[in-house]
This record gives sequence, structure tokens and C-alpha cells, in this order.
Amino acid sequence: MASTSIRYGGGVSREIGMDLQNLGAKNVCVMTDRNLSRLPPVKAVLESLVKNRVEYKVYDAVRVEPTDSSFKDAISFAKNNSFDVFVAVGGGSVIDTCKAANLYACHPDADFLDFVNAPVGKGKPVGGAVKPLVAVPTTAGTGSETTGVAIFDYEPLKAKTGIASRAIRPTLGIVDPLHTLSMPERVAANSGFDVLCHALESYTALPYDQRSPCPTNPINRPAYQGSNPISDVWSRHALHIVAKYMKRAVRDPEDLEARSSMHLASVFAGIGFGNAGVHLCHGMSYPIAGNVKSHSAKGYNVEHPLVPHGLSVVLTSPAVFNFTAPMCPERHLEAAEILGADIRQVKREDAGAVLADMLRQFLFELQVEDGLGAVGYTKDDIPALVKGTIPQERVTKLSPRAHTEEDLSRLFEASMKLY
Amino acid sequence: MASTSIRYGGGVSREIGMDLQNLGAKNVCVMTDRNLSRLPPVKAVLESLVKNRVEYKVYDAVRVEPTDSSFKDAISFAKNNSFDVFVAVGGGSVIDTCKAANLYACHPDADFLDFVNAPVGKGKPVGGAVKPLVAVPTTAGTGSETTGVAIFDYEPLKAKTGIASRAIRPTLGIVDPLHTLSMPERVAANSGFDVLCHALESYTALPYDQRSPCPTNPINRPAYQGSNPISDVWSRHALHIVAKYMKRAVRDPEDLEARSSMHLASVFAGIGFGNAGVHLCHGMSYPIAGNVKSHSAKGYNVEHPLVPHGLSVVLTSPAVFNFTAPMCPERHLEAAEILGADIRQVKREDAGAVLADMLRQFLFELQVEDGLGAVGYTKDDIPALVKGTIPQERVTKLSPRAHTEEDLSRLFEASMKLY
Repeated sequence: MASTSIRYGGGVSREIGMDLQNLGAKNVCVMTDRNLSRLPPVKAVLESLVKNRVEYKVYDAVRVEPTDSSFKDAISFAKNNSFDVFVAVGGGSVIDTCKAANLYACHPDADFLDFVNAPVGKGKPVGGAVKPLVAVPTTAGTGSETTGVAIFDYEPLKAKTGIASRAIRPTLGIVDPLHTLSMPERVAANSGFDVLCHALESYTALPYDQRSPCPTNPINRPAYQGSNPISDVWSRHALHIVAKYMKRAVRDPEDLEARSSMHLASVFAGIGFGNAGVHLCHGMSYPIAGNVKSHSAKGYNVEHPLVPHGLSVVLTSPAVFNFTAPMCPERHLEAAEILGADIRQVKREDAGAVLADMLRQFLFELQVEDGLGAVGYTKDDIPALVKGTIPQERVTKLSPRAHTEEDLSRLFEASMKLY
Repeated sequence: MASTSIRYGGGVSREIGMDLQNLGAKNVCVMTDRNLSRLPPVKAVLESLVKNRVEYKVYDAVRVEPTDSSFKDAISFAKNNSFDVFVAVGGGSVIDTCKAANLYACHPDADFLDFVNAPVGKGKPVGGAVKPLVAVPTTAGTGSETTGVAIFDYEPLKAKTGIASRAIRPTLGIVDPLHTLSMPERVAANSGFDVLCHALESYTALPYDQRSPCPTNPINRPAYQGSNPISDVWSRHALHIVAKYMKRAVRDPEDLEARSSMHLASVFAGIGFGNAGVHLCHGMSYPIAGNVKSHSAKGYNVEHPLVPHGLSVVLTSPAVFNFTAPMCPERHLEAAEILGADIRQVKREDAGAVLADMLRQFLFELQVEDGLGAVGYTKDDIPALVKGTIPQERVTKLSPRAHTEEDLSRLFEASMKLY
């Protein structure tokens, strides 16, 4: 039932060797990706391990936007070594891959689909503990250091799915703002959009007391509980930070105050959505990322076509919040106000339009691609995108507004062009 | 390193039998006090245990404002039975007593003073785990359900001290707002003042990056770390709720919205101060409570003289924040504004006076006794009160402003009469 402890401060990742000693680690698995393996965050962590005489092995083959096969490769690596602690140094892809490696190495007899969310997988509950995982995030977006969720592309269905269990939540998140100084401009933008949508979606998610059915035994409560008084505090606070700092953080990689603030906003929004859940932007983002054709993402040093996660999430946000606003117009108006809109004369029924306009302006100023069209989709792709959204019921059911396949179709269509 | 999970909602305490089953409990210790043992919260918990066939024994001899001897009595009870899970149903006194009983039952060879904070005790770190503790708070004040702190009166020195270790933090806090409907008016007021001071003290505590010396190994960091970006969120949010709901919650026990909100504020402020710490109001409150002569507390059904904890804390608050304001005037002004002051024309150098006036007005409206004089103290008692504050260095060192014994003397003197 425990939550993740967070340690925050410039340079705190240099203490990780002592943390691992304190955990009694004898054989540590350090996971990262190829790019990061040459950059300062990984270097700082490895130096601290050496200095504190902690034995470790590095796995640096994590795939950016991981797939079932890249997960399985990392799982084999973990199974072939008897690691007692896992350390993930990277963005959401690295942390999520490390969660899966830890989980399946501790359950060597489980089939890969056993713990994957239904309907793609069997959604079995995780029985028994896994090894401690220390997460050192290097982007300011995922929030994965605080959540029990690991997302991947399930290639046979061309759709993202994931594993969701409190059991895989990291033990400790080491949030060292110096790490985010190595983020390229577009990575800062896209990961910031993930924070923005985590905050907006969790703040507008179906309230926790309106979810049904209500499980009779508390152990069967889902990881995503709907918006509630605790997640609200984090979601709203994260949104305030995004409004104040995101543009500065994207435009100037040397702006330590802004990048530090976005790093914390990522943690805060992570605690918020890890508790409340996300809904349509995330649910619809998975097929947008999964069906990618040839879009190549600026700033991401990868060889495969890619719609980065944060971008795939934010492109539908104006349409989504315009659609959900009638269910809780006050929250949509409050969000618009936090992002800078003057809402004094706005009627409740215009809440959706006002928030959507505010989001379009925010995206335009941050030079985001002009809608799904600009990342390679046409109207002909909409049926496939809708089809890929259907299995995301775990998140889409947290939308405050019920929706049909026609509604999803219209939301994708409205997101083809933004400006 | 783990934090407490919080479950919130009207009626959630009726699920506790299932939680205990899920924890595999075979022999549960339920701790409470004599008054509460006849009231609905204990009844709801016990009914749920019976319904889920969980074996338990009840200890209902917890002392309101516990002492070393009352702690030891509860510890013997725990040692004489092999409990595998502890459940505390009550206010801070009950939850703190239960933490101590769990701790020493799991360390049967430890001397009582081993884990007590230095300089009264030896302040040894707790090695090894204790049993799970589920806390069900029935007052809206302590925040003890979220912290690793247990406070008691050490009778040989007539001063409060405590045990502080992450190891004794509850596993699960069940926050059921229906329970607070049984709180008498003065209990609601005094526990609310505890929330107010938790929020104000943690928000103005010495910043985490100004504490010294900085421990070289993270395992040696104190439980109270100083104000930081995470505790700030909780402290400020709790203060907003106090400003909005406390008067309603005190005046109308049937006002479920207000009492629920204060119950949550208590949790939120608990997370804030459990992380950042408190400072002078709490440090000075311990001798105020410990040296009590004949004051009898309205609404508390106890046979001994008593200055309730929240009252002993709040009586010095106008003097304390007037004293600390020069170190961080913005935060003091912000607090005054949240409590309702118009600060638009106020100069930074007047921050302390403005917050002190606001607090006096707040206390007056809630019919608080008129200063230390009204609870039985005279100027002649000041040396004893100062002497009782000295051993509270664990908290007083978190004051943003350094202070001498003369400063403490002046703060007690300024608190003799408030209005």
C-alpha cells in the first residue's frame, strides 16, 4: 500500500550509492537507454555506485517508446542475473521498462500477458513483493517515478497498453533538477505536454465517488480511482507550475529555475494522476503513437518513426476538453484561468470553448505540429484510431463524460488541424 | 522509506475488517480510550472485525495526553499478547500510544528511553520493521495518522518529549469524516488549532536547504527536514481549508461539509509538518501542557488537570509569528492573507504584526482562553516554562529565527494575555 518517497535537490543523485548500500544491495541492475548512457545523469549515478563499492550491471538497450519485444529483452536480462535492487535512470520509457523487468524477474513463471491490463492481457493482480526500484527521472514529464504503471506498445495490436499495479511503484524517486538540463528543446516541450495533460485529465476525471461498480473489498480498488480531494491538490498545483514555467523551460535549457520547477511539476502531476487516473487524451494517444507511419521526431535520437508520447497526448486536448467541459464546467474554467484566460465574463456553457482556445494558443506559442494531420494522419485513418482507443477502457472510462465510437471519431476529426 | 496510504470517505472505516484480512491479520490489537470505547467510531470498527471474523483484543486505557507511565502500560499489554497488526481508533493520544506499543513490543529488549528523542532519551535509530498499524483518527487535529512521531509527557522532567522515526509511521490511515461528528465543540476547536499551527509552523519552518549540518548519508536525515516544495503544498492547502471551514466546524457539529473538510485539513497538515517539522509554538507548548496546575478542560471527559495540546500550541502563536516574521515576511503575509487579512497596503516589516493581529482575532472569535494567564500561569512560571522548552531542540531548531533563552522568556511573557 506504500507510496514512493521523493528526494529532491540539485545533486541528490550523487547520493544514490549510499541509498543502495542502505538497502543492502549486493547486485544492482542499472537500466537506461543508449543516448543517456553517455550523458551526465548516468555518469553521476555510476560514479556514486563505484565510490560506494556497490556491484552493478548496466542494461542500456531500453527502447524509447517501448514495445512488448523491447520489454521482453529487458526482462530476459533481469532474469539472467540475480539482481536485488533495480535503478532506472531516464525518462518514462526507461522507468517503465525497469518496472516490467523487475516484475517478471520476480515472477519468473508468469506469462508475459498475465499482468498486462485487460482486455489485451489477463490483468491478473500481482501477488507478492518485487525488488526495490529506485527511479532517477531525467525528463520532466512522465511522473513514472511515482506511479505503479508501465506503458508499452503491444505490436500485434498496434496499440499501447500497460501494466498497472501498486506493487511495481518505485520505492524511491530521486528528483535531481540538474538532470533536466540535458534535455533537448523538443523533449522538454513534449514531456511538458505530458505533465499538462496529466494535470488536466486527472483534475477533470470522473469523481472517485461516482465510479461504479464500487468494489466490495478495498484490495480490489483500481490504481486509478477518479478525481479526489488528494489528487486535486497535486493536479491543480502542477497546472499552476506549468502555466508559470513551461514556456521558459522549453525555450531556455539553461533556465535552472524553470527546468527545476517543471521537474517538480512532473512529480506532482504524477502523484495526482497516479491516484486519480487520466482519461481521453491519454486513451486516444495510444493509437496515435502506435499507428505512426513515418513521422520523425525532432530532438529524439532514435532510428524508428515516432510520435513522442507527450505530443500524441496533447494533440487531442483542445477537442477533448471542449467535449468533457459540460460535466464539470467549473473545473474546466478554473483550468483555463490558471493557464491565463480571463474568465470573469465567461458563461458556464462556454467553459469548453474557452479552455480549448487557451490550449490552442499555448500549443501554438510552443510551436507544436498543427494537429494529427501534421504528424501524418488523414481522415481515412480515423477508424483505425478509434479501434485502437477501444481497448484503453481502463483509462477512457474515467472520462467524466460517457462517449460512443462516434464521439471518438468526431474528437479525432476535430484534432486533425488545430490552428 | 514508505509513506502512509490514506483512504478517505464517509463510512470507509466499516471496511477495516477486510483490510485486516488482506493484511493476513490473525490477532489484532485495537487501542482506544475509555470515552471513545462507547462511541460510534469504535463500534463501527469492532463490528467490521466481527463481521470479517478477525480475532482482536481491545485496550481502552489510553490516557488523553499520554505520559511515560501510560505509554508503558500500553506497551506491557502489547508485549503480553502476540499481536500481528495494530489498530488505533482515536485522536493523537491514542494513535501515538499505539505507535509506542507496537514499537516496543517488536523490540522487547529495548529500554524505554532507547528510542526516545535526545536529550531526554538516547534517540537510537529504530532498526528493523514493526508490525503494520492502521490508524483511524476521530479528531481533526493531530495528523498523527500520517507521521512517524509519538509524543508523551515525561513525568520525571515535567516536559513533553517523543519518539520520532519513519519506522513507526502508520501503514494505512482511514479517514472517515463521519467520525468527527462525535467531537465536542471544544475538542473541535482545540484540535483545529493544532491543524492551524501545524500548517503555519511547517510553512514558516527553516528551509530544507538551510538546515545544518547536512548529514553525509541520506539515512541519517532527520524526520523533520525543514520547509520544502512538497510540504509547502500541503501546509498552504491546509491553511486555506482552516480559513474557510474551521469556524463552521467548531460551531455546528452537524455541519458535515465543514467537519469533513477539517478532517482532511488535519491529514494534509500532518503530511506537511510530518515532512517539514514544526517549530516554536510546538516546542513551547510542551512545558505549557506539562506544567499544568489545575486547569480543567471543557469538553474533555478526563479526571486530571489538562491544557489540551491544540490549546497549549495556539496560545503562543501571535507572539511566535510576530517574532519569526522578519526571516520570511512574504510567507507570513501570505498566511495572514489566507486567514482573511487585507495585505495590499502592508509593508514587509509589518508582516509579523499583521499575522499576529489576524491570529488574535481568529482566536477571539473562537472564544479561546485569554492567554497563558487564563490557563493558570503567572510571570513567576516563566523560568520553568523556558527550562521546559530547552530540551525541545528537535523542533525549536527548525525555527527560521535563532533564539536565546531571553527570547523565549519574552515570547512566554507576551503570551500571558492575548486580547
